[in-house]
Amino acid sequence: MTNYQNIIKQIHGHLSLQKNYGEVAEYIPELAQVNAEKFGVYLAMVDGQSYCVGDWQDSFSMQSIVKVLLLSLAYTKLGGRLWQRVGVEPSGTPFNLLGILENDNGIPRNPFSNAGAIVVCDVLMDLYEDPRQALLQLVRELSGDNFIQFNKQVAESEKTEGYRNVALINLMKSLGNIYNDVDEVLDLYFDCCSIAINCEQLAKTFLFLANHGQTIDGHTRLLNPSQAKRINAIMLTCGFYDEAGDFAYKVGLPGKSGVGGGIVAVLPEKYSIAVWSPRLNDKGNSYRGLKFLEQFTTDTQLSIF
Amino acid sequence: MTNYQNIIKQIHGHLSLQKNYGEVAEYIPELAQVNAEKFGVYLAMVDGQSYCVGDWQDSFSMQSIVKVLLLSLAYTKLGGRLWQRVGVEPSGTPFNLLGILENDNGIPRNPFSNAGAIVVCDVLMDLYEDPRQALLQLVRELSGDNFIQFNKQVAESEKTEGYRNVALINLMKSLGNIYNDVDEVLDLYFDCCSIAINCEQLAKTFLFLANHGQTIDGHTRLLNPSQAKRINAIMLTCGFYDEAGDFAYKVGLPGKSGVGGGIVAVLPEKYSIAVWSPRLNDKGNSYRGLKFLEQFTTDTQLSIF
Amino acid sequence: MTNYQNIIKQIHGHLSLQKNYGEVAEYIPELAQVNAEKFGVYLAMVDGQSYCVGDWQDSFSMQSIVKVLLLSLAYTKLGGRLWQRVGVEPSGTPFNLLGILENDNGIPRNPFSNAGAIVVCDVLMDLYEDPRQALLQLVRELSGDNFIQFNKQVAESEKTEGYRNVALINLMKSLGNIYNDVDEVLDLYFDCCSIAINCEQLAKTFLFLANHGQTIDGHTRLLNPSQAKRINAIMLTCGFYDEAGDFAYKVGLPGKSGVGGGIVAVLPEKYSIAVWSPRLNDKGNSYRGLKFLEQFTTDTQLSIF
Amino acid sequence: MTNYQNIIKQIHGHLSLQKNYGEVAEYIPELAQVNAEKFGVYLAMVDGQSYCVGDWQDSFSMQSIVKVLLLSLAYTKLGGRLWQRVGVEPSGTPFNLLGILENDNGIPRNPFSNAGAIVVCDVLMDLYEDPRQALLQLVRELSGDNFIQFNKQVAESEKTEGYRNVALINLMKSLGNIYNDVDEVLDLYFDCCSIAINCEQLAKTFLFLANHGQTIDGHTRLLNPSQAKRINAIMLTCGFYDEAGDFAYKVGLPGKSGVGGGIVAVLPEKYSIAVWSPRLNDKGNSYRGLKFLEQFTTDTQLSIF
Repeated sequence: MTNYQNIIKQIHGHLSLQKNYGEVAEYIPELAQVNAEKFGVYLAMVDGQSYCVGDWQDSFSMQSIVKVLLLSLAYTKLGGRLWQRVGVEPSGTPFNLLGILENDNGIPRNPFSNAGAIVVCDVLMDLYEDPRQALLQLVRELSGDNFIQFNKQVAESEKTEGYRNVALINLMKSLGNIYNDVDEVLDLYFDCCSIAINCEQLAKTFLFLANHGQTIDGHTRLLNPSQAKRINAIMLTCGFYDEAGDFAYKVGLPGKSGVGGGIVAVLPEKYSIAVWSPRLNDKGNSYRGLKFLEQFTTDTQLSIF
Repeated sequence: MTNYQNIIKQIHGHLSLQKNYGEVAEYIPELAQVNAEKFGVYLAMVDGQSYCVGDWQDSFSMQSIVKVLLLSLAYTKLGGRLWQRVGVEPSGTPFNLLGILENDNGIPRNPFSNAGAIVVCDVLMDLYEDPRQALLQLVRELSGDNFIQFNKQVAESEKTEGYRNVALINLMKSLGNIYNDVDEVLDLYFDCCSIAINCEQLAKTFLFLANHGQTIDGHTRLLNPSQAKRINAIMLTCGFYDEAGDFAYKVGLPGKSGVGGGIVAVLPEKYSIAVWSPRLNDKGNSYRGLKFLEQFTTDTQLSIF
Repeated sequence: MTNYQNIIKQIHGHLSLQKNYGEVAEYIPELAQVNAEKFGVYLAMVDGQSYCVGDWQDSFSMQSIVKVLLLSLAYTKLGGRLWQRVGVEPSGTPFNLLGILENDNGIPRNPFSNAGAIVVCDVLMDLYEDPRQALLQLVRELSGDNFIQFNKQVAESEKTEGYRNVALINLMKSLGNIYNDVDEVLDLYFDCCSIAINCEQLAKTFLFLANHGQTIDGHTRLLNPSQAKRINAIMLTCGFYDEAGDFAYKVGLPGKSGVGGGIVAVLPEKYSIAVWSPRLNDKGNSYRGLKFLEQFTTDTQLSIF
Repeated sequence: MTNYQNIIKQIHGHLSLQKNYGEVAEYIPELAQVNAEKFGVYLAMVDGQSYCVGDWQDSFSMQSIVKVLLLSLAYTKLGGRLWQRVGVEPSGTPFNLLGILENDNGIPRNPFSNAGAIVVCDVLMDLYEDPRQALLQLVRELSGDNFIQFNKQVAESEKTEGYRNVALINLMKSLGNIYNDVDEVLDLYFDCCSIAINCEQLAKTFLFLANHGQTIDGHTRLLNPSQAKRINAIMLTCGFYDEAGDFAYKVGLPGKSGVGGGIVAVLPEKYSIAVWSPRLNDKGNSYRGLKFLEQFTTDTQLSIF
């Protein structure tokens, strides 16, 4: 029987001894101030077991990882009609380019680009009376922690510096793919990205995607099995900006990263795993997080391929 | 126990009764002359079982499907150094655009674009004394059929009409990413695409990718498990031109299509499946082939996600 | 001796009888309400003569034509250093595309694109204590009319609908090429575009560009001869969005158009001419304005080529 | 009265003393072998006067300058129908990019890009029984020198190395904008570019464009005045690759450069001037040639603006 605790402990220890590369995200003070050497892992199995190592209890900023939850909230209510507003194809380009939107009439290539997630927020404003509350309630329920909150300071800082996102949403508005007030949609987007979460909470939150769309206690079904499959497929093809292909072939798991240094990945029917290490490679993904997951799927021989 | 024969027979029957959409590839006479209503399926299990229905014994033109085998031949010899010549990221754009090459200094985004496969052919010319023979030998061995051959007429027709591929290779030559004579490389590429194969042969040929890189009789190991995983990852993210994301989320299997109307897909540790139906949707993928596989993974509940 | 009055009267009469094509700009109510069949011409000679026909006394919205004056105000103070912030090359693309900015690190191709004019406004905010007043004073002095004013309603409407310009300026801000507050810069830009002017005032305002940079009474020198030459060169190559080449070869004069239906053009050492007709062709230039000027340079045999 | 001989002698002398920048074109041996410090000027006036200085009698390779003559040959026979095959807008991009062609369905932006000149060659093959002879005859007649010839070695070298041009023509063929055999069209194009010419011959050849389309002796009319005006307009907006805007505002003359180091420019109704100096700036235009012309139009106060 695979000794998961040994494996994650060994990889964590090995990587901790090696040189750590990359820079912490510095465009807002709240992200820049984090301790760059933090390194936590939490592995939550579908069978209820769990394993952890390092700084798994420290909270960090969810950032782009929240895009998966936003997508799930929109998809569960709107179904396939959602794809009229945002595509499902990998873009092959960095996460925030505008040129591509113009050629596609304001339809973002996929829901995990900034443009795509902003459109999803616009959709949520029409679907939910209080989309912030809907998101928070979802994360709290899935993670089992009622104290998870938005980080208002992070959100405020992002609003001050988010010129490119302002550009994105205004371009899409001019092309007819934003229905609500641009400032309100952006506010929602930045608030959602600011959620503070730790590895345990994150791994538990994503476990439903390894379990055909429902919580492992069977109490809550967020997505049907077909929908869960689709979200996983989009994570695999689009979850890592323009490093998605590289992640797919090195790690071989559907997953999503954020500039807070977090990565979460799932192996359907098996587990959800969250890794956190703030230094980012030049593609914007956690350097140690990627290294960890690559070694983890190699050592466990468990990947989707 | 799953009754695969029943499932594929039922889906085949159901789709045969429904309207068939799309156009047969018509840019060369040999492809245009095919009977548009042909429809065959062959399912080869890793445990040695197999199931088939419809026109599974009729040969068709392999076309882009051969790119996976070319990649395997190059990867097994060159390993990771191959990625200096061709990327592994999905392009998000149609399969034969040139603009993207210019921005990337002649490095194609992935080995399943035309540009990427042409670079792989260029690599093979330096790796193998007789790359045509190496490919043919591989297909014959994997499929267990020694009569598989290139279709010279198809290859000749492609050479006459392949202006865009001539453009691609000359652009890459001017950017320094083609080492051999452009005409010889293109000849090799067109010859390889012309291989005539039927569903049984195709499914059997790709079974090694569902079996960690080796044949199910254990006689031949083409790739190590890690390499097989990577090829599967590239198939998933890049195997269907700009419909890769759609295929990933509808079918959920690594696979590859060709304009001859064939599609092959694998479920690691389980099976390889080949479907053939010549009518193509507007993305250049077999209309019925996609419909079949979508229903097949839904009915069997077997996909990687 | 050329009888200019006869020529302009004849062309005006001829075109008035022909079908008028195109649509009036409709993105804001103030522009949409204009009488689409208005048609005025004013020709101001360097020797002091002038000729006019039709609705030359009716005011219309200056819109993009003001970009030439903004450029002159910045260029006279900053000289060649201005070209570090904005290029002088034609873009070959429509006037408001964003993709091109990303490739060029936020440096607009030329000062007559929206992006370029917005950068010029940003520059003016650092050069002039009250740039609005500086512009108004310039127009009033050159035209000899002290009642010329901004149209606040037009400016307000543009601010409400100008999503694409908001996108442009935020993209440039994120790329480091906007120094001031984005909202203040945009306000300035929209205010400047809103100036209401008639054909006589417009022709007189631009006469300094036909006179080596100084007013024909010799009282005021805005630019030195070399600078005036450069502004004219930029008007010729970039003055008509992606119809610049067409205008250059059909009309053969440096000029600038606006979506208010105005066009102004100059023949160095000879004249400045303003035409106004609100219906725009699909490139956003006045349909009758272009027709008039093409016939005018053909009949007078006077063009720069 | 302007002393042209003094002016050109003085500028030539001044620049000869200053450091010479840039590299000689080196992609084919014949161009690389030229003496990089050669520097000649020839000024031919419409009134029959002429002035010269430096290496004006040395022959050099015409290269892209010939595109103007090819265009004239096509335009005189086909008139405005030519613009269905090639545009008249500046591209704002380097001279040999392919991406732009794809967006425009194989219609090059203007006849002075490589793609545009190749389309013009394709047109000439349908218009003239022997287009090579037609071109040679034209150059010989205009220059008054019957010994002007193609340089077969230059043409052969270009054919061997011209991968990018092969890419361009094949892309256009695939998009339907090349009617003849691609190899024959390219042969014609390379032959035409190879013409060896000196400053005197070049200045005299282009004098018709300063004289409303006819030779100054009145014997031959190649273009009507309107057509000559249009060619000049295209030279101004598109004659210097992506440095066209810069040339327009610094020099203020319609002109055309070639990688052989030649530049020719015209001032309508006044003169044609040819400058030759092989070192090219990073835009591919003669470094000293540009410097010379900028100073020349400043000193003579003669430009179109």
